[in-house]
Amino acid sequence: MDSESRRRFIQQTAAWSAASLFAGSLSQALARDSQKKLGWALCGLGSLSTNQIAPALQKTQFARLAGIVTDTPEKAKKWQAQYNIPAKNCYTYATMEQMARNKDIDVVYIVTPNALHLEQTQRAAKAGKHVYCEKPMETSVERAQQMIDACKAADRKLGVAYRCRFEPNNLECIRIAREKELGAVKVVEASFGFTIGDPSQWRLKRALSGGGALMDVGIYALQATRYITGEEPLTVSAVETKTDPVKFAEVDETIAWTSKFPSGAVASCSTSFNAADTGRYRARADKGWFGLEPAFMYSGIKGRRSDGKDIAFPQIDQFAAEIDDFSRCILENKSSIVSGEEGLRDIKILMAIYESARTGKTLNLAG
Amino acid sequence: MDSESRRRFIQQTAAWSAASLFAGSLSQALARDSQKKLGWALCGLGSLSTNQIAPALQKTQFARLAGIVTDTPEKAKKWQAQYNIPAKNCYTYATMEQMARNKDIDVVYIVTPNALHLEQTQRAAKAGKHVYCEKPMETSVERAQQMIDACKAADRKLGVAYRCRFEPNNLECIRIAREKELGAVKVVEASFGFTIGDPSQWRLKRALSGGGALMDVGIYALQATRYITGEEPLTVSAVETKTDPVKFAEVDETIAWTSKFPSGAVASCSTSFNAADTGRYRARADKGWFGLEPAFMYSGIKGRRSDGKDIAFPQIDQFAAEIDDFSRCILENKSSIVSGEEGLRDIKILMAIYESARTGKTLNLAG
Repeated sequence: MDSESRRRFIQQTAAWSAASLFAGSLSQALARDSQKKLGWALCGLGSLSTNQIAPALQKTQFARLAGIVTDTPEKAKKWQAQYNIPAKNCYTYATMEQMARNKDIDVVYIVTPNALHLEQTQRAAKAGKHVYCEKPMETSVERAQQMIDACKAADRKLGVAYRCRFEPNNLECIRIAREKELGAVKVVEASFGFTIGDPSQWRLKRALSGGGALMDVGIYALQATRYITGEEPLTVSAVETKTDPVKFAEVDETIAWTSKFPSGAVASCSTSFNAADTGRYRARADKGWFGLEPAFMYSGIKGRRSDGKDIAFPQIDQFAAEIDDFSRCILENKSSIVSGEEGLRDIKILMAIYESARTGKTLNLAG
Repeated sequence: MDSESRRRFIQQTAAWSAASLFAGSLSQALARDSQKKLGWALCGLGSLSTNQIAPALQKTQFARLAGIVTDTPEKAKKWQAQYNIPAKNCYTYATMEQMARNKDIDVVYIVTPNALHLEQTQRAAKAGKHVYCEKPMETSVERAQQMIDACKAADRKLGVAYRCRFEPNNLECIRIAREKELGAVKVVEASFGFTIGDPSQWRLKRALSGGGALMDVGIYALQATRYITGEEPLTVSAVETKTDPVKFAEVDETIAWTSKFPSGAVASCSTSFNAADTGRYRARADKGWFGLEPAFMYSGIKGRRSDGKDIAFPQIDQFAAEIDDFSRCILENKSSIVSGEEGLRDIKILMAIYESARTGKTLNLAG
């Protein structure tokens, strides 16, 4: 990394903490006193919580793993021991409203199948807890809106776990786009997919997932088109195909879509549960191009520019970064860039993509 | 290049000449006798003819540069001297039908603005010459069909200059796809574009070009989706934007489109006259991915596969390869893989992409 890159990296990764670390704010004081870290409870102890989020919560500056919500007693026991979680901070999905009396827990991070997010958000909010929720936010516009309403009614914050928004290489691409360093972006090509395994998993069951590849990983490509252009799409136009109607009986297998944006940029995107894909994007501007491949993984994110420069900022723990960011938003009573409203925007567009694929019509999203 | 790659390269680049070189055919005999090379006349002496095609015709095995058609006397003079072309083999657009009496010329290669292709094809065919024509074939389905009709009526062959169809790295991608070496292709992402310069050039004038980025370079992305899937698209769905309505007053600036194919593969494509683009494609199959970047340039074509292997066959002169292939088709009375019918297929799809962008509807192409 040359000195210019180092300077940018420091700017970017420090940006979120700059206010608190250097401006004498509340969180600066809190940062000095680890007892004052916000208590996070993980709701849903699947592989993402186990392998990514719980380890990340060991590195966070403004958050600590304080509680768990699971219906599996063996998991509860294991996690209590591993993370030194007192029994009183362990809940089931049915008992989580009792958190209201538990001052150890400030935030519930919902890491369950998509269709459970609304009810769990409502319970957490009712218990007076802030809510951080995995993406996609929910399975319909109405349900996502109800999550926002529930948190608003309880005067609690709601955030959606878009970790790429805190990842330095993605931030660098956003900077290149905003500063028009290679000109105005005219085309964003983005994709994410993978060949899904176990046919019995919840991601393939509509009642739990609300949709397939598009909901699960296409959302990364959609987000990329929005954060690179810095705009909301005016239209979506989509096609959908299915080559394995048994495995993908309930959800979408492969979808490709295009959008246009107010600046005149277009997006060209695809997603699949039945194709190997590194997950990548390429922005094409009038003076050059730039992009990442892989763009959305937990690590190894890197990219290139048309002028021959690499985009190669050091990897960070994206989960730790997003958790610290949301904690700071709570501590400083700031709004999150990955708010419920932001999550809802994606849900609206995802639903429009499905509708366009179904009707064969370009959908206008404006207004 | 490892021995396996070398073997494939030899197979591929030799494939076209195998029949003639090893099977004792007519062209084998001709190859021995340089006097018997087919005589090609270049119609239109712009930069492509000057910098690519004429030099290529110095390397061809079955073709030689025998004549020219130009309305610019200075060019005629320069080319006569440079390539030792007798004055009797130099024509203007108005006099090219007089080629009928000229036995030096067997083929006319039309390298002029798109909207001139039909008339020049008709004249060449009427003069009893075979026709090879730059892509896109013409500016409408009707005019492309008339080119086919004219050559058919004159019992002459018609070919369209899709040089990538003879390029070893593109051929390797076709092989990987056909042999399903990385599984069945589910997604093809393809793009080509550039930031166009001189605003007075014919490519920006509808009367000469018939369209903008899509006609000029989007056609490469479209071709790639067809030769990688080995199928014809069932649908197209497109969006178009314009950020410079002065420069692009008459033609399309930026278009993105999607298609679905009979196998269930989808294509996600884009093209622009106002964005920097290496021109690339990536095919995503169920066991891995592969693709080229750059994919469509005159040289430097290379690619990658998900298994870490490079696609790095040696560069060839693509113009020499396509000219030799068409010459062989004439010598052996075989049909060309880049026939007029093949060119017409693209024109039909290009027109459907424009119509979809205009109407906001997914167009069905089947039947």
